Amino acid sequence: MKTLASTEVLDVLNWRYATKQFDPSRKIPADVWETLEQALVLSPSSYGLQPWKFFVVTDPATRAALREHSWNQPQVTDCSHHVVFAIRTTIDAAYVEKFIARTAAVRNMPTGSLDFYRDMISADLLNGPRSAMIKEWAARQAYIALGTFMTAAALLGIDTCPMEGLDPAKYDEILGLADQGLQTVVACPAGYRTASDKYATLPKVRFEKDELIRHI
Amino acid sequence: MKTLASTEVLDVLNWRYATKQFDPSRKIPADVWETLEQALVLSPSSYGLQPWKFFVVTDPATRAALREHSWNQPQVTDCSHHVVFAIRTTIDAAYVEKFIARTAAVRNMPTGSLDFYRDMISADLLNGPRSAMIKEWAARQAYIALGTFMTAAALLGIDTCPMEGLDPAKYDEILGLADQGLQTVVACPAGYRTASDKYATLPKVRFEKDELIRHI
Repeated sequence: MKTLASTEVLDVLNWRYATKQFDPSRKIPADVWETLEQALVLSPSSYGLQPWKFFVVTDPATRAALREHSWNQPQVTDCSHHVVFAIRTTIDAAYVEKFIARTAAVRNMPTGSLDFYRDMISADLLNGPRSAMIKEWAARQAYIALGTFMTAAALLGIDTCPMEGLDPAKYDEILGLADQGLQTVVACPAGYRTASDKYATLPKVRFEKDELIRHI
Repeated sequence: MKTLASTEVLDVLNWRYATKQFDPSRKIPADVWETLEQALVLSPSSYGLQPWKFFVVTDPATRAALREHSWNQPQVTDCSHHVVFAIRTTIDAAYVEKFIARTAAVRNMPTGSLDFYRDMISADLLNGPRSAMIKEWAARQAYIALGTFMTAAALLGIDTCPMEGLDPAKYDEILGLADQGLQTVVACPAGYRTASDKYATLPKVRFEKDELIRHI
């Protein structure tokens, strides 16, 4: 694998910002978008359980409806691809079993050899303390995917805008998520900034490094 | 900014895996580690509020103590740098004010010009529905940083292992977080895989793309 120099990584992270104005005329090319979908698929999650589903919304009518429930933020309709991050509302034994079966299939190993792994997951997520906060557990995983997605996008020169300012229940309704056992947690429009988005060139606001990082 | 080709991005994301065996003899060089700390600092968060603090633990005794409360996972003591992601337990008006002051200072603008932004944040996080789940809100932001950190690390050829299998209360105790208004949410050892970590070469387990992504 080809690694990057430190300056290249920092250039990318500094280039990224929460884009306020997307150029509605510019669409992400299909091959680049395919890469970003792969980045979503490859995103890490606890135990590798992938408790999520990603909705890529390009249909104008659906985007107009979503924008109404996104504090009317123009990014929803002006971006190239609007991604909605949804979580599974239930993580149960059947889902864990499905994941174990998938693991056995992908890695060409007998399901029985994964008994220990299944038991560990079940003891933690289904029967342990995390079972009481399983939706929040899933939401946190979705935010890993969000972080991965934004960084991967920046590497490819694609702008994004992480978006919590939306009504999850309305999103669920418009996208028909409840019937699928899913729930919206966050969204992220992706596309290209306009030359006139003044936020693109403002210095990034971060607290002093000493306030954010401590060495022990 | 230099962008990457799709294959370069996917190579990096495929190279990353949850490292089970770190080589205890290999330490991340200071300049590379500095870049990863910058990646943490540059990580996106809602409103840019950075409701977090990152503890970089290299002290062997502290790591031994943390390992006892990390399901005894050897990565905690074998990695080069063990990062603990902590959140602020309180987001209040004073904190929002501090952020607004920092924004004004960094961007060289009068604080008064940020009244609208302060009011928006307050209406949402301090007085809105999100105030009831503010710690979870903060935890989700920390997971964006976790996703950003793991991807940045992989770009630099550094291995990581996201770690939820730990006792947050014990971590808080060992690191003295309660007195600082902080709370552990997740950890991530970083360093270099050993040649013998068999997990490094196993195929990644992901559900079929059609199950994870839907186009609308």
